[in-house]
Amino acid sequence: MNFSSRLLENAVTEFSKLPGIGQKTALRLVLHLLNQPTQDVERFSDALTRLKKEIRFCEVCKNISDNSICEICSSRKRDKSLVCLVEDTRDVMAIENTNQYNGVYHVLGGLISPMDGVGPSDLNIDSIVERVKAGEIQEVILALSATMEGDTTIFYLYKKLKDFPVKFSTIARGIAFGGEIEYVDEITLGRSIVTRVPYETSLR
Amino acid sequence: MNFSSRLLENAVTEFSKLPGIGQKTALRLVLHLLNQPTQDVERFSDALTRLKKEIRFCEVCKNISDNSICEICSSRKRDKSLVCLVEDTRDVMAIENTNQYNGVYHVLGGLISPMDGVGPSDLNIDSIVERVKAGEIQEVILALSATMEGDTTIFYLYKKLKDFPVKFSTIARGIAFGGEIEYVDEITLGRSIVTRVPYETSLR
Repeated sequence: MNFSSRLLENAVTEFSKLPGIGQKTALRLVLHLLNQPTQDVERFSDALTRLKKEIRFCEVCKNISDNSICEICSSRKRDKSLVCLVEDTRDVMAIENTNQYNGVYHVLGGLISPMDGVGPSDLNIDSIVERVKAGEIQEVILALSATMEGDTTIFYLYKKLKDFPVKFSTIARGIAFGGEIEYVDEITLGRSIVTRVPYETSLR
Repeated sequence: MNFSSRLLENAVTEFSKLPGIGQKTALRLVLHLLNQPTQDVERFSDALTRLKKEIRFCEVCKNISDNSICEICSSRKRDKSLVCLVEDTRDVMAIENTNQYNGVYHVLGGLISPMDGVGPSDLNIDSIVERVKAGEIQEVILALSATMEGDTTIFYLYKKLKDFPVKFSTIARGIAFGGEIEYVDEITLGRSIVTRVPYETSLR
């Protein structure tokens, strides 16, 4: 693209580094910001630099938090013997939105992915081993994505943790509510038959 | 959404004010930036604040520029008697990319749109009237979008400028290269027959 200004080009280049944002979208976003009052643009960039500088991660569960211990980990109402292992903070938000879970979390910060150069040492794995070793945890729910990276990570974690006296569970795979059986892929459908639940359970 | 941190929520709120960016996309972008090194995030927000603070608009054509007169207006190779009226800097970039135009531009900064509260006084209309009044301009190309706002703006400009001794032209409407006749809408097809050009012209 032929930019009429180097300042404009810089801003567009920075924006187009974001995932899913191409040059044309970046230009649209930058021109939108340019049309906003200066204080709005400053608020935008301040929010980002403050986030990056002041962000903390909960010392227990490694979730993004404003305090050294996050609200979930410091809540008395939460069951500390039940830990849900998730990839990132978005998964915590998604599970919290269901209002069905009363345990605590452990945020890995990613999944093992040799293709992207992410190994076990890049993730919060040592800290979950420490937590399990401490003895308070009775059940670990492995709530990772059903992808190759998710399965690899689950396998690695299972090997690390299997000698401790904790129960392991994974979230149920099956047909989503509203899903029609004829359109479900065969692997999911097959598993949903093998892992069928008593009808009474499904009513709960 | 239930955010685990107010800093995170602020950043997501700011991002989701951008056009076409919803809360989920905003969260994805913010978490991506959070995973980048601090200097990258600073470069990102610096590029924006610098753009907003230091940006200038060419005194002649009102296009975004690093100098008081932009490269196009200060170039000796450009034909100053030919002015192309466009909505914003993206249109200048698009026309420049064709390498077919050797005149100069005038950037309106928007289109007249009463629905969005944009009136003639919000646009760079007085300055084009001044430029035409100065006498150097011989032809004005009206290169605005073929929308209601574009047509309204063209009509307004035409009324303002029609008493000056300048020629007006609009960019040709017609069937795009690669377009199939049977799929073209009837208005475009109709106009393309009425405004047909000699075959020899089309070969140039």
